[in-house]
Amino acid sequence: MLMQRLLAEGLGTCLLLATIVGSGIMGDALANGQPGAALLPHAIAIGAMLFVLITLFGPVSGAHFNPAVTMVFAIRRDLPAADAFAYVIVQIGAAMLGVWLAHLMFDLDVLQVSERVRTGPGQWTAEVVATAGLVFVIFAGLRVAPHLIAVMVGLYIMAALWFTASTSFANPAVTIARSLTATFSGIQPADVIPFLASQILGALLGWQLASLVYLGHPKA
Amino acid sequence: MLMQRLLAEGLGTCLLLATIVGSGIMGDALANGQPGAALLPHAIAIGAMLFVLITLFGPVSGAHFNPAVTMVFAIRRDLPAADAFAYVIVQIGAAMLGVWLAHLMFDLDVLQVSERVRTGPGQWTAEVVATAGLVFVIFAGLRVAPHLIAVMVGLYIMAALWFTASTSFANPAVTIARSLTATFSGIQPADVIPFLASQILGALLGWQLASLVYLGHPKA
Amino acid sequence: MLMQRLLAEGLGTCLLLATIVGSGIMGDALANGQPGAALLPHAIAIGAMLFVLITLFGPVSGAHFNPAVTMVFAIRRDLPAADAFAYVIVQIGAAMLGVWLAHLMFDLDVLQVSERVRTGPGQWTAEVVATAGLVFVIFAGLRVAPHLIAVMVGLYIMAALWFTASTSFANPAVTIARSLTATFSGIQPADVIPFLASQILGALLGWQLASLVYLGHPKA
Amino acid sequence: MLMQRLLAEGLGTCLLLATIVGSGIMGDALANGQPGAALLPHAIAIGAMLFVLITLFGPVSGAHFNPAVTMVFAIRRDLPAADAFAYVIVQIGAAMLGVWLAHLMFDLDVLQVSERVRTGPGQWTAEVVATAGLVFVIFAGLRVAPHLIAVMVGLYIMAALWFTASTSFANPAVTIARSLTATFSGIQPADVIPFLASQILGALLGWQLASLVYLGHPKA
Repeated sequence: MLMQRLLAEGLGTCLLLATIVGSGIMGDALANGQPGAALLPHAIAIGAMLFVLITLFGPVSGAHFNPAVTMVFAIRRDLPAADAFAYVIVQIGAAMLGVWLAHLMFDLDVLQVSERVRTGPGQWTAEVVATAGLVFVIFAGLRVAPHLIAVMVGLYIMAALWFTASTSFANPAVTIARSLTATFSGIQPADVIPFLASQILGALLGWQLASLVYLGHPKA
Repeated sequence: MLMQRLLAEGLGTCLLLATIVGSGIMGDALANGQPGAALLPHAIAIGAMLFVLITLFGPVSGAHFNPAVTMVFAIRRDLPAADAFAYVIVQIGAAMLGVWLAHLMFDLDVLQVSERVRTGPGQWTAEVVATAGLVFVIFAGLRVAPHLIAVMVGLYIMAALWFTASTSFANPAVTIARSLTATFSGIQPADVIPFLASQILGALLGWQLASLVYLGHPKA
Repeated sequence: MLMQRLLAEGLGTCLLLATIVGSGIMGDALANGQPGAALLPHAIAIGAMLFVLITLFGPVSGAHFNPAVTMVFAIRRDLPAADAFAYVIVQIGAAMLGVWLAHLMFDLDVLQVSERVRTGPGQWTAEVVATAGLVFVIFAGLRVAPHLIAVMVGLYIMAALWFTASTSFANPAVTIARSLTATFSGIQPADVIPFLASQILGALLGWQLASLVYLGHPKA
Repeated sequence: MLMQRLLAEGLGTCLLLATIVGSGIMGDALANGQPGAALLPHAIAIGAMLFVLITLFGPVSGAHFNPAVTMVFAIRRDLPAADAFAYVIVQIGAAMLGVWLAHLMFDLDVLQVSERVRTGPGQWTAEVVATAGLVFVIFAGLRVAPHLIAVMVGLYIMAALWFTASTSFANPAVTIARSLTATFSGIQPADVIPFLASQILGALLGWQLASLVYLGHPKA
């Protein structure tokens, strides 16, 4: 049923954002001015939750939680356009709810706007790389190790938080929602659009690369 | 045999509390005043032990270690009320023994009372979220990936320690027992009751959400 | 062939000690006076290597690397006494070689003696708990999840490094060998004997507890 | 098809180096002068990516990403000499591209040369040990647990970064490429050759040890 699949996408994306924003607030508060001490548990928490959320919601909705991923499935005709559109709306709305839930848990003002600058060719390149890698992991994983996609996505994102200059947003719904928090994980609204463009480009690139590498390769 | 199941619940809950309180003491002692440096190994140790304890005791007692989880199984009639009552008594008693064992290992006074304040609507919301998530992971896991419940609970709690403002107690036996330590992981007795209420509410919420998402979904 | 099994025990124990002592030296050198920053990678490295070594050497020798574990297998008549004796000799000798290999890699004097005090009822209790837990994990694992013993031992020891006051030696060969390094992970020779006694006591306790919990339980 | 296998080796090695160099830059920038706080996420990111890359590219090219590993497969006649030669060229070229990609993402000059000294008998011993261990894990893993090689290589390298004095390069393509970055993970060109010699020696040693330990052992 579409309603249950949307519920799964919504719950998963909401919890993902609560994890991202909440662990950022907690890490920042406890880091005593050493930013790496905030980013490490942030990365570990996000990777762990991605494994859990993809394992639990994958059998229901596919566990995209990510408009760039949904877009590629729609282009491939694996998902009807109307479903894809509903997925994306729910993902963006649920991501915003997740941010606000994190604010509630930490006794912060619910409505905030980020002033954190995240811009420049390095960060845009990083978002292309981060999203290409994520989409590659998903489509390559579908070919050679579908039962390991959840753990691979979790570990890939945990690593990408450290090796990409942008800390790997790699997700348009996540990017939009993170403009609504003035805490550790925020991005100012003016910097959102170039991130989205880089992510869409990266998603297409990652998908094409996976097609190329596994062309003619037998399915798992 | 009920006696063996109670022994399993008791040993598991005792070791879980020894891990929580012991790693809190060690982390705090070595953190040099940077609280994040105490919370990170604390979270990793707890997550790792949960995986081990649930894997080993699951086949014997179900490895609840948690009155909120036992309550939901009893409401669902998966566990007779008398067994559930025995489980809860053993969980609370064993949790207290685990706290005292940690004190013994660190040459501290065995009998202590916490003075650490943990209160307010943010923390209560956090406990609702943390427990709802935990119970959702268990009941969703039973539907789609029973062999991964141990690893999912371990990773979920490790993450929840960082993204919930309360550091995710999510367990009435753990909450009561942690009022008996004046170390890193304590909670003052006056703050216990609202935590328990939030946890019970969260457990019911998590269970209902899992029912909704997987309604009509085939069992794994 | 006994010779290959002894080679497996020797290589594994040697690498285990190189990991323990080497990661202690590296962690200490990079921690900038915050001891928790040395203990965290130390614990992660040891846990990771235990998983690898037990997975690779388990099919050859059983991957004990630990006289207390070998002792319990010998008492149970799972291992002939003569083999057990050879195992223990090789484990102790290889552990010493591993310490010296770590010293070589870090350009330190090969022959050293520790002056680090590790004593008192708290630490001895911790060694009883740590070893009982380790032996319980092994014998409980053999009953309910033999394919997960390697990962459980790795995660258990990683956690026990943080929740036991002694940082969980839990192994007589490891204890003896660590008296031969004046670095982070050392223990002064005078404190070795009470640790060994605690470990032997703990091993017997863990084995008996596992027998009790799984009495009559079907084998995995 | 050889072209797809080379594409797999190239993509994997490129991403591996982007991870090594990128996480080194990020870790260093956020560590506030505590080098351990840079090395820990560096080690975790590299271990996680190795698991992902070996899982995804293993079924296509074998996922060597390492001329020392390719050399042993060629000596064993598991890989034709011409293929091995092509593998090594692609690995070295792609490793360099990965370094430059990391520089691009962090808005640094693309072309750099390292001035970091990494030399002396301790570090050379460490590279022999690190590479012997890596090659042992691969060939022992092929005998007893082929489906766990990806996770074992990831965990082994994560641990070896901490217990070997050289932080475990263990790979000639990685070593050459890392001479081209003046950041955290660099090695000055003058120190490259002895590292390569140690790695080749270690690879041969690890392979011979694996043959010895598993001689006559049934294949998994």
